[in-house]
Amino acid sequence: MFKHTKMLQHPAKPDRPDPLFAKKMQEILGGQFGEISVAMQYLFQGWNTRGNEKYKDLLMDTATEELGHVEMIATMIARLLEDAPLDQQEKAAEDPVIGSILGGMNPHHAIVSGLGAMPESSTGVPWSGGYIVASGNLLADFRANLNAESQGRLQVARLFEMTDDKGVKDMLSFLLARDTMHQNQWLAAIKELEAQEGPVVPGTFPKALEKQEFSHQLINFSEGEESAKQNWLNEKAPDGEAFEYVKEAKTFGEKPELKPAPPCVHNTLPGRE
Amino acid sequence: MFKHTKMLQHPAKPDRPDPLFAKKMQEILGGQFGEISVAMQYLFQGWNTRGNEKYKDLLMDTATEELGHVEMIATMIARLLEDAPLDQQEKAAEDPVIGSILGGMNPHHAIVSGLGAMPESSTGVPWSGGYIVASGNLLADFRANLNAESQGRLQVARLFEMTDDKGVKDMLSFLLARDTMHQNQWLAAIKELEAQEGPVVPGTFPKALEKQEFSHQLINFSEGEESAKQNWLNEKAPDGEAFEYVKEAKTFGEKPELKPAPPCVHNTLPGRE
Amino acid sequence: MFKHTKMLQHPAKPDRPDPLFAKKMQEILGGQFGEISVAMQYLFQGWNTRGNEKYKDLLMDTATEELGHVEMIATMIARLLEDAPLDQQEKAAEDPVIGSILGGMNPHHAIVSGLGAMPESSTGVPWSGGYIVASGNLLADFRANLNAESQGRLQVARLFEMTDDKGVKDMLSFLLARDTMHQNQWLAAIKELEAQEGPVVPGTFPKALEKQEFSHQLINFSEGEESAKQNWLNEKAPDGEAFEYVKEAKTFGEKPELKPAPPCVHNTLPGRE
Amino acid sequence: MFKHTKMLQHPAKPDRPDPLFAKKMQEILGGQFGEISVAMQYLFQGWNTRGNEKYKDLLMDTATEELGHVEMIATMIARLLEDAPLDQQEKAAEDPVIGSILGGMNPHHAIVSGLGAMPESSTGVPWSGGYIVASGNLLADFRANLNAESQGRLQVARLFEMTDDKGVKDMLSFLLARDTMHQNQWLAAIKELEAQEGPVVPGTFPKALEKQEFSHQLINFSEGEESAKQNWLNEKAPDGEAFEYVKEAKTFGEKPELKPAPPCVHNTLPGRE
Amino acid sequence: MFKHTKMLQHPAKPDRPDPLFAKKMQEILGGQFGEISVAMQYLFQGWNTRGNEKYKDLLMDTATEELGHVEMIATMIARLLEDAPLDQQEKAAEDPVIGSILGGMNPHHAIVSGLGAMPESSTGVPWSGGYIVASGNLLADFRANLNAESQGRLQVARLFEMTDDKGVKDMLSFLLARDTMHQNQWLAAIKELEAQEGPVVPGTFPKALEKQEFSHQLINFSEGEESAKQNWLNEKAPDGEAFEYVKEAKTFGEKPELKPAPPCVHNTLPGRE
Amino acid sequence: MFKHTKMLQHPAKPDRPDPLFAKKMQEILGGQFGEISVAMQYLFQGWNTRGNEKYKDLLMDTATEELGHVEMIATMIARLLEDAPLDQQEKAAEDPVIGSILGGMNPHHAIVSGLGAMPESSTGVPWSGGYIVASGNLLADFRANLNAESQGRLQVARLFEMTDDKGVKDMLSFLLARDTMHQNQWLAAIKELEAQEGPVVPGTFPKALEKQEFSHQLINFSEGEESAKQNWLNEKAPDGEAFEYVKEAKTFGEKPELKPAPPCVHNTLPGRE
Repeated sequence: MFKHTKMLQHPAKPDRPDPLFAKKMQEILGGQFGEISVAMQYLFQGWNTRGNEKYKDLLMDTATEELGHVEMIATMIARLLEDAPLDQQEKAAEDPVIGSILGGMNPHHAIVSGLGAMPESSTGVPWSGGYIVASGNLLADFRANLNAESQGRLQVARLFEMTDDKGVKDMLSFLLARDTMHQNQWLAAIKELEAQEGPVVPGTFPKALEKQEFSHQLINFSEGEESAKQNWLNEKAPDGEAFEYVKEAKTFGEKPELKPAPPCVHNTLPGRE
Repeated sequence: MFKHTKMLQHPAKPDRPDPLFAKKMQEILGGQFGEISVAMQYLFQGWNTRGNEKYKDLLMDTATEELGHVEMIATMIARLLEDAPLDQQEKAAEDPVIGSILGGMNPHHAIVSGLGAMPESSTGVPWSGGYIVASGNLLADFRANLNAESQGRLQVARLFEMTDDKGVKDMLSFLLARDTMHQNQWLAAIKELEAQEGPVVPGTFPKALEKQEFSHQLINFSEGEESAKQNWLNEKAPDGEAFEYVKEAKTFGEKPELKPAPPCVHNTLPGRE
Repeated sequence: MFKHTKMLQHPAKPDRPDPLFAKKMQEILGGQFGEISVAMQYLFQGWNTRGNEKYKDLLMDTATEELGHVEMIATMIARLLEDAPLDQQEKAAEDPVIGSILGGMNPHHAIVSGLGAMPESSTGVPWSGGYIVASGNLLADFRANLNAESQGRLQVARLFEMTDDKGVKDMLSFLLARDTMHQNQWLAAIKELEAQEGPVVPGTFPKALEKQEFSHQLINFSEGEESAKQNWLNEKAPDGEAFEYVKEAKTFGEKPELKPAPPCVHNTLPGRE
Repeated sequence: MFKHTKMLQHPAKPDRPDPLFAKKMQEILGGQFGEISVAMQYLFQGWNTRGNEKYKDLLMDTATEELGHVEMIATMIARLLEDAPLDQQEKAAEDPVIGSILGGMNPHHAIVSGLGAMPESSTGVPWSGGYIVASGNLLADFRANLNAESQGRLQVARLFEMTDDKGVKDMLSFLLARDTMHQNQWLAAIKELEAQEGPVVPGTFPKALEKQEFSHQLINFSEGEESAKQNWLNEKAPDGEAFEYVKEAKTFGEKPELKPAPPCVHNTLPGRE
Repeated sequence: MFKHTKMLQHPAKPDRPDPLFAKKMQEILGGQFGEISVAMQYLFQGWNTRGNEKYKDLLMDTATEELGHVEMIATMIARLLEDAPLDQQEKAAEDPVIGSILGGMNPHHAIVSGLGAMPESSTGVPWSGGYIVASGNLLADFRANLNAESQGRLQVARLFEMTDDKGVKDMLSFLLARDTMHQNQWLAAIKELEAQEGPVVPGTFPKALEKQEFSHQLINFSEGEESAKQNWLNEKAPDGEAFEYVKEAKTFGEKPELKPAPPCVHNTLPGRE
Repeated sequence: MFKHTKMLQHPAKPDRPDPLFAKKMQEILGGQFGEISVAMQYLFQGWNTRGNEKYKDLLMDTATEELGHVEMIATMIARLLEDAPLDQQEKAAEDPVIGSILGGMNPHHAIVSGLGAMPESSTGVPWSGGYIVASGNLLADFRANLNAESQGRLQVARLFEMTDDKGVKDMLSFLLARDTMHQNQWLAAIKELEAQEGPVVPGTFPKALEKQEFSHQLINFSEGEESAKQNWLNEKAPDGEAFEYVKEAKTFGEKPELKPAPPCVHNTLPGRE
């Protein structure tokens, strides 16, 4: 169960309205790697955890924090939208600054949400449950989390460079710090799990059942030999075996020819050409 | 530019048709972490790479291989669908096996694709470009790749356990091996990049600009102190600093109250309650 | 069966082209609460009605009118797009007004539809069947309809404020009037149904089967007691019972711990932390 | 900011596993009117509220409760999936019960989530941000909320009828009660707002600017006069005016003919037929 | 403007309920090439037509008919769902036929629509505005229409083979006939337009501006020369020129190397490998 | 299996950066009829072909070429994005040209992909597997291909008119030529198949099973007789029969009345009005 605290975790006050930046900031709210994504990803991973209570705690705590980040960003967007000159179409014809604001805004901010945040990306695409992952394998999922925090912090850093509003930068610098922590924590937990399960997910699948002759081959699928120059090719692979370089990709399979479909399917009959 | 070889990289022949397994196998073709996802993800990462030609080579070679995996799985699905008893509704009423095949199949396989593979998941949801990531930051993206190969290999392993068809298992055991290699290669490349850029993405963002007092705090957002028991809390964080445990989450922000919207937006007027 | 009349229900002629407004107007055509949504929602509700022919008539008549509104708005958008300066990129470099039109237009209007309307929202997201509802329970559905007409009229009112084109305003003032009627009619029909089925949907579910001790509690999930200040708390609830205020949310459930997954699923083993 | 309590708001323990019911229960988790929808809808409405703090409190409290309902249902689904006979394909050929479980399960539960809940509907479609609404107009939004709670309770009631598992029914009877409360509370708040703003949303738009001659007409768009039999036609409309019945829909607009597109668009030239 | 006739264009009465077939029939209602798609496609093409009134008439008439087909199929689905044994879970455990119905139904038909049709495909994916096309170029669009009627009739034919219900077959045999007509009419109209604009769309684009040396080359991108065996290679191309066979694809472009991104984007720095 | 060649099929070098055109060009990369669509459509059609190896060759060769077109366009977009003035918000306030670039860009190009191409349309909607078709019936599918190449070439022609960058025009003029070839080839192959299977898809469905009295009727669904003026009405239909004109659409079906739902569904009871 959850409880709510009326104060924000961190201030979310821009120095001045900026509807164009509000549109961009939607990315870290409702985009593929926005805060809704990490909150929902950690929640589902936590709820689906079977028998590793400490990790479940970690997931639920981090998820709960991320819900508060969604709140901060939604609040910031609502404030960036205040005083948007929505009914000033006459002035817009004369003043290119007003014109470019009205032309460049996310129309949803004006028409749909009434100057509020939307659960969508910077291009106005609704957030999708298809963005997140909760597989029941914690090593796989913590790698997903490390990726999400890496992509997320990268996007926050880019937004930080695209504004000179001190209030916005202040909030973003807090998010950057928390993303640093979250990268650190998933890295630490990954190290712990890799020590127990090995680096290849899932560690419980018997090696003997995979075609091990292909498990360490770097296969060249292009002309030229540049692919061979990877420095790590001469080192042990992370799972302890030696890498092997294959100069040219070979086919081991057949030329696939399918049986004709039964007549009731009304596919093209064989021999039509 | 690409060229095509008529042979498959590896055989894709089931021992016998199995329309219900064809439905399940769609997940590793057109699901969130199916082969279309990794192929497209590596292609876009490769095409967007700016100035690291060796990594671009690695991405393009791996992407090209994955296109061949899409081909193998599509072929396997088409063969698993052969001889589906589509027009035997009368027998289905008597024979529960035929009935459960006709009831459990992906209807698209019968009605839309005429016994062929579809670019969609095991629940029939079309593949989405929103699944993939190509950010221009290679450390972030290689973490995305490691995740994709981990989730992908996990799903292949689960499918392997759910069938006793030797032909299907043969192909899956090849895919398991290649996913082992791909996890190994992204791990090796990640190690290389972390050595140069540090573990926190993006490594080029100045630490001084983030609120460093929050960069290593594990904050407890739930009652009880179980969260504190993470073993790694007492070790150095991956970026070399010390972790800190915060017993209870604090709010640093204000209670957010927004300005009323201008009348032209027709929001509820203030004071209505 | 339907028939078509070549005249529009109401004129749809702007005074002058305005490609930027055409983009915005897409919201009330193909957005979540656009005319496609209400037309399809009423059609499906009508077709799914079982045994209440007068309401089915009302639904089918209103649906049929809404199809004509889709037509009016599509026509208006096509006209707002006429004379868009699509091939004047050289002038655009000099004239900021042309530049902002070319930069702010929906690119689909230029590239995909050839200056025609699209079945999509103001941000260019395709209309989705997931927007509508037709549940077979008419009281539930008329509430959905009242909501759709409320959101729809709100969006039309906002668009009305964002233009000074008399022809556009003329058509919008007609739509505003029809949305007034449709809110009135659903309110009237809701009142009728509530009189027979009670205010809680579905009225046919036996009260004794729900946990009635929780059916009238306003539970406070946040610190402070502001939540208690709702004026209506001291009045009878719409279903005739008394409301009850609960100062602090309590948990009645257990701490959920799940059984480990079977080995064939390859989840993380218990005890990994 | 949010905090998390490790106990569930209400127990979520089925008497026995039932993977087919787990698939169905996904609807009230990640479907159009599932708990994710109401939680997110109330959160965004709360965050976007401008100047009506009591309503904001109500929204945030209810949203926070709904987050706990998402948690309960996710937990229930995970438990319904325990002991699914995933690797018993040989037995399935003999035992039609096992066969129909394996054929009828949501394949994601086996392949993707490792016996955990997914953020998707009962047909496996990912939850979409396009389901929710937060318009800044509270009367419009409370009507959306009343609809969501009506559709939601209807779906819970249907699920209640489709199982005889006492543990599942126990949780559903709690959800039914809370949905009763939430319908009551939105009805009460709607009454309050209608008293101040009138029944037609948005109440702030000047009547004089809409074409009032159309604001109370029930227009017949079909042959026959059955549409006229609505009982409420002879009563005052909710906004106090008289309804009017129009026997046959008339067109007031022109036959729309559009100007040819400029040559640079490469539309079909006029006169081609 | 549209009007509605209460009779169906053609009867839509199954001999008996069949919830599994109702699920399949959703494909031709709300799938990619279902009746909603053709209705909406013709409507948008009609509304966007500029200056070819006879074709606009043809489009609007056909669109209006298709709306009536949506109605017939929705009605048929609602009837196929009658008497579904939704609350007979106890019998289902004993009777494999009831069990397979309850396991194989579209859960939306039970939980969401209350035994009514849904605006979605046979896999439960909502209809999408992204399925349709209305480009303003009528030759292009009539080819889209011919494709839609071909795919649509193919799907209806497959469904026809999958049932032995005489009432269902009766309605499908009517739809098959209308799809025959619609293929005929688009073929006839295409012939007319090709006579005026030539076979290559858009016919108005000056040939001199395309790289004509590549306009008739069949390029072989695979090993072996089977590609050369197309019979039509030795005939004139439809636009009157000679086809040319190119034995092996050549590259004319450069190896693409991109400039490094500016530092503010935080991409990986060049030289990291 | 596929191989990759490091050179592009054709140069993809713009004369100068143009972030606004990069946004527009996304349409022919990741839009409904972009190069990803044709590549995937031909791949799936090729993989699903059963017993017509020459056509399979044609499909696989063309698909492989289209993968190279995706590569060229992705490269062009990445180059159009170079030197975008992302961190010049201060200059933007003064210089309307910089302002309109920053306001009109696809925000994903700045925030998500780090100046790289995205698998999405010009409005930022992710590419969807729902765009493509591979039905197993080659005549149906080649019509889909002809449509895709017609829509695609139309969009390329429109983009060609919207830029004066010689490098961009050079690449587009190559794509225009290849689309000319692909329209020619599908037209030629369609002619071949129609000669064998007849013009109505699927040609294998027995005519006697469709209601032939409706197979050649052009039915007028609107007032007036303009629909009758189609020139081709007096010619033989493509399948050799005579067309027939029906002055006024008739209904042959009943007024649909559905049975009440069983109580367990909690639909509105009959007689509620």
